[in-house]
Amino acid sequence: MLLECFHHATRSNWAYAYDEKTIHLRFRTKRDDVDEVYAITGDKYDWEAHYKELKMDKLASDHFFDYWEIGIRPMHKRFSYGFRIRAGNETVWMVESGISHEQPTPPGGYYEFPYIHPVDIFRAPEWAKEAVFYQIFPDRFANGDPSNDPEGSKEWGGQPEQGGFFGGDLKGVMDNLEYLTDLGINAIYFTPLFKSPSNHKYDTIDYMEIDPQFGTKDDLRRLVQECHKKGIRVVLDAVFNHSGVEFAPFQDVVRNGDNSKYKDWFHIHSFPVTVDENPANYDTFGFYGHMPKLNTANPEVKKYLLDVATYWLQEMDIDGWRLDVANEIDHRFWRDFRVAVKAIKPDAYIVGEVWSDSMLWLMGDQFDSVMNYPFADKTLSFFSNCDKDGYMFANEISRLLIRYPQQTNEVIFNLLCSHDTPRVLTMLGEDKRRLKLALVFLLTYIGTPCIFYGDEVGLRGGGDPDCRKCMEWDYDRQDRELYDFYKLIIALRKNYPMLRHGRFRFLKAEPGDCRVIYERLDDEMHFTVWMNNTTERTVLSHPMETNDWHDALSGQRVEVTDGAMNLELDELGYRIIYRKII
Amino acid sequence: MLLECFHHATRSNWAYAYDEKTIHLRFRTKRDDVDEVYAITGDKYDWEAHYKELKMDKLASDHFFDYWEIGIRPMHKRFSYGFRIRAGNETVWMVESGISHEQPTPPGGYYEFPYIHPVDIFRAPEWAKEAVFYQIFPDRFANGDPSNDPEGSKEWGGQPEQGGFFGGDLKGVMDNLEYLTDLGINAIYFTPLFKSPSNHKYDTIDYMEIDPQFGTKDDLRRLVQECHKKGIRVVLDAVFNHSGVEFAPFQDVVRNGDNSKYKDWFHIHSFPVTVDENPANYDTFGFYGHMPKLNTANPEVKKYLLDVATYWLQEMDIDGWRLDVANEIDHRFWRDFRVAVKAIKPDAYIVGEVWSDSMLWLMGDQFDSVMNYPFADKTLSFFSNCDKDGYMFANEISRLLIRYPQQTNEVIFNLLCSHDTPRVLTMLGEDKRRLKLALVFLLTYIGTPCIFYGDEVGLRGGGDPDCRKCMEWDYDRQDRELYDFYKLIIALRKNYPMLRHGRFRFLKAEPGDCRVIYERLDDEMHFTVWMNNTTERTVLSHPMETNDWHDALSGQRVEVTDGAMNLELDELGYRIIYRKII
Repeated sequence: MLLECFHHATRSNWAYAYDEKTIHLRFRTKRDDVDEVYAITGDKYDWEAHYKELKMDKLASDHFFDYWEIGIRPMHKRFSYGFRIRAGNETVWMVESGISHEQPTPPGGYYEFPYIHPVDIFRAPEWAKEAVFYQIFPDRFANGDPSNDPEGSKEWGGQPEQGGFFGGDLKGVMDNLEYLTDLGINAIYFTPLFKSPSNHKYDTIDYMEIDPQFGTKDDLRRLVQECHKKGIRVVLDAVFNHSGVEFAPFQDVVRNGDNSKYKDWFHIHSFPVTVDENPANYDTFGFYGHMPKLNTANPEVKKYLLDVATYWLQEMDIDGWRLDVANEIDHRFWRDFRVAVKAIKPDAYIVGEVWSDSMLWLMGDQFDSVMNYPFADKTLSFFSNCDKDGYMFANEISRLLIRYPQQTNEVIFNLLCSHDTPRVLTMLGEDKRRLKLALVFLLTYIGTPCIFYGDEVGLRGGGDPDCRKCMEWDYDRQDRELYDFYKLIIALRKNYPMLRHGRFRFLKAEPGDCRVIYERLDDEMHFTVWMNNTTERTVLSHPMETNDWHDALSGQRVEVTDGAMNLELDELGYRIIYRKII
Repeated sequence: MLLECFHHATRSNWAYAYDEKTIHLRFRTKRDDVDEVYAITGDKYDWEAHYKELKMDKLASDHFFDYWEIGIRPMHKRFSYGFRIRAGNETVWMVESGISHEQPTPPGGYYEFPYIHPVDIFRAPEWAKEAVFYQIFPDRFANGDPSNDPEGSKEWGGQPEQGGFFGGDLKGVMDNLEYLTDLGINAIYFTPLFKSPSNHKYDTIDYMEIDPQFGTKDDLRRLVQECHKKGIRVVLDAVFNHSGVEFAPFQDVVRNGDNSKYKDWFHIHSFPVTVDENPANYDTFGFYGHMPKLNTANPEVKKYLLDVATYWLQEMDIDGWRLDVANEIDHRFWRDFRVAVKAIKPDAYIVGEVWSDSMLWLMGDQFDSVMNYPFADKTLSFFSNCDKDGYMFANEISRLLIRYPQQTNEVIFNLLCSHDTPRVLTMLGEDKRRLKLALVFLLTYIGTPCIFYGDEVGLRGGGDPDCRKCMEWDYDRQDRELYDFYKLIIALRKNYPMLRHGRFRFLKAEPGDCRVIYERLDDEMHFTVWMNNTTERTVLSHPMETNDWHDALSGQRVEVTDGAMNLELDELGYRIIYRKII
């Protein structure tokens, strides 16, 4: 055994309370190096009376490692533990104080889970597990009220540029709720709605006002009400890392310099503040001088922004916040933000924009979820061609899966593209078959899926601003076949609750092969998804122990012959096969 | 290179802000497997303009791994990064998205340190770095006022039992402050002083009263004042995990059951509460029915306990809290505790009782420090005999060093024994030479050392209650030679600030050899400590580049011959050699 590969930690994704009774433990070994891993557990105050050895399951594998997992339900809300690892005739133990060939005397030096405190458990809103999100960039979704179009707005459907407007608004969304319910989505994430000079509105002037180009507060209130009637939740974008230069407090600093009562609302290096210098003499988002960074550690700023957060929850009854540039704001701010938000709406969904490992924000005290851009990267990279084979794909997805606790994985905000990336269809070489594979994966994977407006009717486009084209409302120019496919797969996810919480595992993912099979599984239902990510027809085979399988889309029975299922798959084709366990 | 050994994480001890300008990064490789590790860094918003490659230092090694470290000072409070690792002709890169033989295109997939927020930086009180603590178990330190002795108190110096009193009190401490200042300590940690029926007082009746056997609030106030005049800080013991059964709210639950307004102050399983049952029908500390666990998530309980914490800070001007059974209380409680305590006294020292890995509490939002029992284990195990050689000792100490960020290591509460363990002299086979080696190690290692009352005059004793013997005040029965040695080594630590913050590293620690050399180093001073943990005289040699060394205790010059220092060491002897760099 390669002992160097053993890994465990008494925190974060390696040991955490999944619910009030259950602790999940994970352990890492070198891939294919170990036969069995047992968790050895006891109560440190009375070890013998509570001693247990419990076999762990192999949860996932990546290039280097196997990951083992077990759920433990201690009698007294606490336990100490170690691991026993066997390969052939060799057995070793690993506890906190080290690795040994004889079992160390418990409980000194063992790992501890000191006590399960419900208040410390990371609990995400239940509805987020059921949600299929639709991301709307309001200037580009639908123009319901031409009277509020910004001056010089361009004709709907024109080529987007960095600046410029197309007149989309809240009424446009209201007018098209039927479209969204027909598609099957049940949650909307709006990029910013608050007053700002730009089309994207990430440079806020006033956090307490809807930008007039989108409508009024009443429009938003009515829209949220109407959404709720249709079972659609609404999440807004909180741009709290920075304001725009036209934000009144910043303008006060520009005017009054060192005498401004707002001078500590920002990170000013020197006075006077010169807005057009590069580099700016104040902290900014990136190097954008027109986006001055807010000093979120300043109690006045914190109070102001928390008031903003609670105002829109209370007054408009929104269902959560997406947090822009969330990782550049201090953790104390987010802890207080969570307390303030959850006090008003305990099941508000808090999803941070963090592109890299986000464990620090997902310990239960800050966010419920993060935008899973690494998921998008890995998925698009695999389905865009087969430079990476199924083995590499499975390794990468498994690494993402093991990165977070299960409750995070259940509500992580999975996306294929957004207003900040090229369109998914464009990323996939405009090959609809590849898009369908990626979509099936998105909607049969664990986590909360999000669809970027217009992907479902075939919108194309490169990076910003090309990905922010106007929604296509001309029925004849919509890709209706694609739309129906989105609708079908969304319905599939909603019809089978197991797709939201069941265990995910690759069944087949081999080097040099771009065909993969994976499963979702709980006590009641078993799904297997078969994907042929190659441009040739193929027959894919896999051993199956029972013979009670059906195609989830056609309903047809699928036969098992001599203990194996042999499925013919089209070029870039797939099958979704399931059986009921009880 | 064994790529499986590479390890980094974007949090806790692997990547953290050391101060407002400096980020520490650590990286792990297989021991002796790699020639160089570089941190490759840039600003994700303008990579090329800020690109740097910075060589990392080898910080420590253990049985399996080498650990590399670097301090990085980014221009704009943020950076993205990866690692370049070279062994011979082979070079690989590791970034968050994986390991590769070509440098991945930055910054996508790289690790990120998104922004240095002063409010998120873990800052421990400066004075704790300078402190040498003395732990007092009040019933056993000194009896200054026989009039407050509990009924049936035993004669001073008798054999301690689980129950029973000896009459020690606050006046006893007051009367002996000269003794403590002569010894050289500058901080006292008192085990509990609040009203309780037991001698140890970990079963509180009233958190707002000093137990009458110890004196009055005025006695404590005067004692703290007098300590402060002498430059001694005072830390009290906060027993917030559980109360005693006689605590009024618990008695109210016993009397009124389901109708008690205090029923949610505890974790009651069923009514009526039956105190003498085993197991109890309420959560307890361990399985001790007379120590009902407090429900610290209940806002009323939290308010009560935070009021207790702030009361003694405000009214008595104490300097910090030691937190009993700290890991069994919820994290939210400790976060609010820190805010409340630091609001009153920003440099109050918060030290948790946690026996195992405590990183979860040491992220800057909860404790400043924890009691370093693993340090005691490893140190006593090495110095008690040589079952473990110097190589194993160095590996174990290095693992502890790498476990926490540097600012934690600087104030971690290092001890050799306490009221919960056998006496250090007893653990070391009553061999004073071994005790001296262990003490030299304690006081020349990184962290805040603590001496258990009486160790300095040769108190012996096994586990509780034997380790809680009365302090020996008979001059003729005190081991004065040992006392003078304690005094000497404490003075050494206080005279050389570098011993508080300088880098610690083993210079010699080899398999099969119980002799070790380690160094402490900063820009101004270089210490080397030579230890012969064997029962034979020896000559220990080590290459030395300069010839300006002195013995730190005798002041004598120590010669370097042919580029090496050759020191003759007595059986279980040591030398402390230093030079000034500037």
